[in-house]
Amino acid sequence: MFKILRKGKQDGSRLGLLPTAGGIIETPVFMPIATKGAVKNLTPEELKTLGAGLILGNTYHLWLRPGMEIIKKAGQLHKFMNWFGPILTDSGGFQAFSLGPRMAKKGNLKTAEAKISDEGVKFKDPFDGKEYFLTPERSIQIQLDLGSDIIMVLDHCPPGMAMRKDVEGAVKRTTEWAKRCKEYFNKKVNSKSKIRSQTKKPLLFGIVQGGIHKDLREQSAKELLDIGFDGYAIGGVAVGEPRQTFWQVLEWVLPLLPEDKPRYLMGLGKPEEIVGAVKAGIDMFDCVIPTREARHGRIYKFKKRNPKLKGNFYETLQITNGKFAKDFQPIEKGCDCYTCQNYSRAYLYHLFRTSEPLALRLASIHNLRFYIRLTEELKK
Amino acid sequence: MFKILRKGKQDGSRLGLLPTAGGIIETPVFMPIATKGAVKNLTPEELKTLGAGLILGNTYHLWLRPGMEIIKKAGQLHKFMNWFGPILTDSGGFQAFSLGPRMAKKGNLKTAEAKISDEGVKFKDPFDGKEYFLTPERSIQIQLDLGSDIIMVLDHCPPGMAMRKDVEGAVKRTTEWAKRCKEYFNKKVNSKSKIRSQTKKPLLFGIVQGGIHKDLREQSAKELLDIGFDGYAIGGVAVGEPRQTFWQVLEWVLPLLPEDKPRYLMGLGKPEEIVGAVKAGIDMFDCVIPTREARHGRIYKFKKRNPKLKGNFYETLQITNGKFAKDFQPIEKGCDCYTCQNYSRAYLYHLFRTSEPLALRLASIHNLRFYIRLTEELKK
Repeated sequence: MFKILRKGKQDGSRLGLLPTAGGIIETPVFMPIATKGAVKNLTPEELKTLGAGLILGNTYHLWLRPGMEIIKKAGQLHKFMNWFGPILTDSGGFQAFSLGPRMAKKGNLKTAEAKISDEGVKFKDPFDGKEYFLTPERSIQIQLDLGSDIIMVLDHCPPGMAMRKDVEGAVKRTTEWAKRCKEYFNKKVNSKSKIRSQTKKPLLFGIVQGGIHKDLREQSAKELLDIGFDGYAIGGVAVGEPRQTFWQVLEWVLPLLPEDKPRYLMGLGKPEEIVGAVKAGIDMFDCVIPTREARHGRIYKFKKRNPKLKGNFYETLQITNGKFAKDFQPIEKGCDCYTCQNYSRAYLYHLFRTSEPLALRLASIHNLRFYIRLTEELKK
Repeated sequence: MFKILRKGKQDGSRLGLLPTAGGIIETPVFMPIATKGAVKNLTPEELKTLGAGLILGNTYHLWLRPGMEIIKKAGQLHKFMNWFGPILTDSGGFQAFSLGPRMAKKGNLKTAEAKISDEGVKFKDPFDGKEYFLTPERSIQIQLDLGSDIIMVLDHCPPGMAMRKDVEGAVKRTTEWAKRCKEYFNKKVNSKSKIRSQTKKPLLFGIVQGGIHKDLREQSAKELLDIGFDGYAIGGVAVGEPRQTFWQVLEWVLPLLPEDKPRYLMGLGKPEEIVGAVKAGIDMFDCVIPTREARHGRIYKFKKRNPKLKGNFYETLQITNGKFAKDFQPIEKGCDCYTCQNYSRAYLYHLFRTSEPLALRLASIHNLRFYIRLTEELKK
């Protein structure tokens, strides 16, 4: 059961503990992304040192490669990838809809539009053209087979600028699929052969859709609440709609969600968005920004040692810029990460400019630590 | 002073301790390669854990990028790259001769043949066409500025299939340059302003050339011995000559080298070559094989737990081969490296096949540990 330890006096923020089969998660929590069963460039031990309490895997990627037979034989995902903390897995729907067409645009002819019906999503593996059919039941089964600690329902997430009619359909389908996910999950998880004890039971989260439409967001939230989940995610943000509208979405949806369940904002965001979302009452985040930006040499840092988290409380350094060639300071004074404790900006500049792969690792360590420190600051 | 602890009863092998300013090195020793001030994908802490006692940096690469001004301001190479064990630096000659033409072949028009005269080597930076002039004195000064613990003289290393006349010239020039290196080194190192105490004094190694010609190898060795160095390297092997001839070169040269000085075989080799060379009396090795092969998914392993180091005592796994997709064993049972302790072949297969950068790191860790275990086995 999710336990709220303290609430913000002047805002909606919450400090909580979320027990899962894989361990207890302190919230607010930022999840490093291990889409294919590895966080890029980093080991699980490094993630632990950085303070990561939960990581994110993806049904879509792991289903296609290495495939479920191998994950099952390996003793599930934790063991396969050597991470023994909690894992949340996304349901794969978003990737099934979006990755095929994205690859097709890049000239990969094996892929085409995914075909979505009430039954599920038919899509092709962009690499070999093989057909897959992802249903709500299949998504749950895969996530159970992965050994996920927090399982997401299969949802229908239309593009951010979709027509209202399409969003209406997506909300309806998301609710239907959520019901089927819950039914299947209950059937499987409560059968003793599959899950040995209550402490090993994964959690199941619903996902609120509805795009940029207040009534559809409200409808989606209410319908999911009627089904009942262990936590609620807000999906369909940062998918092509004007970035600012997500504040409105939070305003519409959060008051409808129960206090005593964790809330997960999917796929966001920039540091100031995370701060704002925590203040609005969000508990969980995942985002590619820290690791992806690190790989492009964009490094995040707080401006002050005890940041107030207001205004421009952070900045980014494009470490490949010539001005860092002779800068022998650490990335950020006062940062406790391995990179800042041992290396200068000049060294990172040198590694990036000479294409040394250690660059990506050192930058990823710092950026992830920055995001995790951000949640630690928020806890204060 | 190099101290030989024990000698092989049936062969020329030696177990030794080589004190340097950066720490004591146990020999035989295999050096991981940190050409540009970083071992690809690995941190110094990982190298320590793998048992690395000495690493190799390169004058050529570090002179061009980041350049000596930055290395000096950073407090020399150890501090810049966060490695606090001993560092050996190559003199940069070999790269100055060979990298320009190699880049030119790849279509880089900024480079041309390096111009070698008795004075030094004129070459162009393959990336921006800027001209550099590397002299024996310059090479020593750069290595002193890097803070190297073992400095190599500038030598002239012709291609392995060069005409005898050219090899003759290269031997003559190598001797002349070695004299100038020694003179410059003595002048600089013995001036108190540069090196504060005897314990901080770097070692200077000569390099025997002479190609595949017995008399030239002997001439080169004798001339270097007359000058006198802290150790002797055998260069000009594995540079395009028939691979087997290097056994002959060892046979010619090793009897001429003094017992009480360390002997370094440059740029080699395969595991069986290292075993053979240690038995012949070589103490030090560097080679790109373990890290470069790792990046291509070729993983080295011993066949037996207590390998005899005879016959086919090791094998390589092409880990991207489909047969490893469902192989849940570690790379090598009994290997104490992080990769073997925590991951399966199936996981490495998955990481390589999905282009996850952690693959390169895990494979590099194992391959380097394999090479270092090889020297540990040899010490027994």
